[in-house]
Amino acid sequence: MSKIQPRTLSGFLELLPPAQRQMEEIMSILRETYSLYGFTPLDTPLIEASEVLLAKGGGETEKQIYRFTKGDTDLSLRFDLTVPLAKYVALHYSDLAFPFRRYQIGKVYRGERAQRGRFREFYQADIDIIGDGKLDILNEAEIPAIIYQVFTRLGLQRFRIRVNNRKILNGFYELLGLSEKAGDIMRTVDKLDKIGAEKVKALLTGAEIGVSPDQAEEILRFISIQGDNAQVLSALEGYRGRSETFDAGLQELATVVKYLAAFGVPEDHFAVDLTIARGLDYYTGTVYETTMTDHPEIGSICSGGRYDNLAEYYTDKQLPGVGISIGLTRLFYVLSEQGMLNPQRTGASADVLILPMTEDLTQAVSLATAFRSAGVRAQLYGEQKKFKAKMTYADKIGVPYVVFLGEDEISAGLVSCKDMVTGEQTKLDFSATLARVQTGLRERSQGKVIVEA
Amino acid sequence: MSKIQPRTLSGFLELLPPAQRQMEEIMSILRETYSLYGFTPLDTPLIEASEVLLAKGGGETEKQIYRFTKGDTDLSLRFDLTVPLAKYVALHYSDLAFPFRRYQIGKVYRGERAQRGRFREFYQADIDIIGDGKLDILNEAEIPAIIYQVFTRLGLQRFRIRVNNRKILNGFYELLGLSEKAGDIMRTVDKLDKIGAEKVKALLTGAEIGVSPDQAEEILRFISIQGDNAQVLSALEGYRGRSETFDAGLQELATVVKYLAAFGVPEDHFAVDLTIARGLDYYTGTVYETTMTDHPEIGSICSGGRYDNLAEYYTDKQLPGVGISIGLTRLFYVLSEQGMLNPQRTGASADVLILPMTEDLTQAVSLATAFRSAGVRAQLYGEQKKFKAKMTYADKIGVPYVVFLGEDEISAGLVSCKDMVTGEQTKLDFSATLARVQTGLRERSQGKVIVEA
Repeated sequence: MSKIQPRTLSGFLELLPPAQRQMEEIMSILRETYSLYGFTPLDTPLIEASEVLLAKGGGETEKQIYRFTKGDTDLSLRFDLTVPLAKYVALHYSDLAFPFRRYQIGKVYRGERAQRGRFREFYQADIDIIGDGKLDILNEAEIPAIIYQVFTRLGLQRFRIRVNNRKILNGFYELLGLSEKAGDIMRTVDKLDKIGAEKVKALLTGAEIGVSPDQAEEILRFISIQGDNAQVLSALEGYRGRSETFDAGLQELATVVKYLAAFGVPEDHFAVDLTIARGLDYYTGTVYETTMTDHPEIGSICSGGRYDNLAEYYTDKQLPGVGISIGLTRLFYVLSEQGMLNPQRTGASADVLILPMTEDLTQAVSLATAFRSAGVRAQLYGEQKKFKAKMTYADKIGVPYVVFLGEDEISAGLVSCKDMVTGEQTKLDFSATLARVQTGLRERSQGKVIVEA
Repeated sequence: MSKIQPRTLSGFLELLPPAQRQMEEIMSILRETYSLYGFTPLDTPLIEASEVLLAKGGGETEKQIYRFTKGDTDLSLRFDLTVPLAKYVALHYSDLAFPFRRYQIGKVYRGERAQRGRFREFYQADIDIIGDGKLDILNEAEIPAIIYQVFTRLGLQRFRIRVNNRKILNGFYELLGLSEKAGDIMRTVDKLDKIGAEKVKALLTGAEIGVSPDQAEEILRFISIQGDNAQVLSALEGYRGRSETFDAGLQELATVVKYLAAFGVPEDHFAVDLTIARGLDYYTGTVYETTMTDHPEIGSICSGGRYDNLAEYYTDKQLPGVGISIGLTRLFYVLSEQGMLNPQRTGASADVLILPMTEDLTQAVSLATAFRSAGVRAQLYGEQKKFKAKMTYADKIGVPYVVFLGEDEISAGLVSCKDMVTGEQTKLDFSATLARVQTGLRERSQGKVIVEA
């Protein structure tokens, strides 16, 4: 028979088993952490009617959509989890309780140009809190706690949650009389890290934007406000009273900062950062980015913010919300590239490999059943191979314990068990063997899935 | 702004939060159980190159495929998890250890005619064990144990795993000299339950199939062999010695039955059933079906079998395997229709709803943080609403405990906590409140996700 060359499409991540187990571990921690904060899991179709998914229309995204017809229906694959959430909330509005807190971990599709580290199919892990008409600032204050918990539970230590408030930015440009140029200014100021203050100033005062030199100075002075949270807030106080929007934003930011400690977020993992804007149309209040201290080049690994109108394309209902998103596939790829995934954490598909050494396998099968009843992941190896081949298999799957069961063991009511790391071999009864294995597994599972050098 | 009517495509299941939590619970139990048997999770792209996915080509399935082009690439959505597994194993052959045991829970796509209870996007939950060249019968013997554990852990009690062996069927038709007609005969015999023995006999002896009346009698006698496992095996012994294939199949079936008890499968949940054939081309050894005793009309809820060549379209390597699949979306739908999903099992998105009764929320936030640190899912309710609206919200999300924190409680160092089911309210310190909540949650989580009337 002529063969088809098996391949996986470029831009589609397909992991080998050990890496997949690490990915599952990460997803499991995300699910657990989000649940702890009262978020409920959601699962929406990957395919939606194009007219629904693309209600907002236009933009860079539309070119990247996977769009096709089936029968006479115009279909598209979702390109994020926000639009499906908007559809879900508008569609099921009367069945939901608000604030509605959901998390969703799912694949999305964007036909980007294929290049290393860019994916066309990738997981996003999103949480959102949706209010009906209103949504209290407390929800915005809670988000840094969730980000902090997620990354801490994953094992990341050196990261910082950077927070700003869009009302402060908008209010600041308002009090300078530059509201209409605010978009252009923010886009330019965003380049500060890359091109430096002088070039930003030149662009701001150039013909295209046309800000006066004094205003440019003022803008640069404003966005370079730095220090700890108290210092930044105190510097911002100096602008109070000149714009209602600014004052409201400052009030919100102060509230977010105020509850940080009670939410369990250490001050050194949090920073008010006036350079963060996060998209110009959508966000209206607190905005978040999260950066790895040792890897600023990676950019934000968890971003989001407060918005006022989740579902305006589908309903007249005002549905404000706040949400954050982790680009999980990209994060996983980056962690893997940086060697930051703990190889010991989820190294094997089984805890115990049972090698029967007798013709009749009844005792070996019973032993496997006993391990499984005790919650130990046990695999029976029944293949007719030489002993050496069996041990090679054990090595290859990375199983921590191999159990041998021969006539000798069976007649003595004992079990031989080899620790594949230390090489130590014991011959004990089942319950003593089980205890040894369980203790060993507990020790091995101490580490976290992400490790820093 | 003109609005787009939000909708979800027909044939695409989108669950409300309480149902979604039950679905997540089921998936979590599947993952846990499969892991216990040494299966490793796998995740493959939903999109594959059409030439790869449709290598086998033809058939009813191809018409149902979601197939489209993006750029100049001919793409298809996967329609099962077996073809992607075949591709994965052929592609990553040198990186895998055999036997390779994987589970995959994922969505697949088939453009079926839309009708109630039929889905175009649905989850399958598959496990497979793939050997390199050979695969021991022990793996086939283990499958009923996994099926039994999965459904028992889900809470199903009245179900039966029905097992046959294709070699017995093929061997039987061989010893009657009917090998070439075996396919037609099995397709006809498969209608026994629906049309009865007389009509089956008429079809068998009709012009199209052309079996002699004696042979038809023999066939009907054979497939009506019944009784407990020992009785069926003993009846089959009567055919031994006339076909090598039959004898090999009988040997395999006897081995599967032999280890049942050691694998922890009660005899009353298992039956040898000679009417089961499961597809005519693919399976070559043991075949499995699982039926709900009270709902035979639903058909098999978990099926599969042994095959000899997983990836013949991609590689010359002989990769025999054994696998089973649960049509998870359909099973969920059926359980839901039958009222068999336990409403108490995963009824709320949070364990505790905290209602702050003070202006300053620091203490309420600290309390939420303390609950979460103890692993209790806590939600803070910060909205400015009347007390009654807050309690309505608590009812609507079905939270089991509501905690009130006012000035009185704070100054006394106490917490008011109301059990939303019993109405009982306590005013205790945090650790006593926590203990009460944890005890209550343990009691509530006793039931299983599936309940039988």
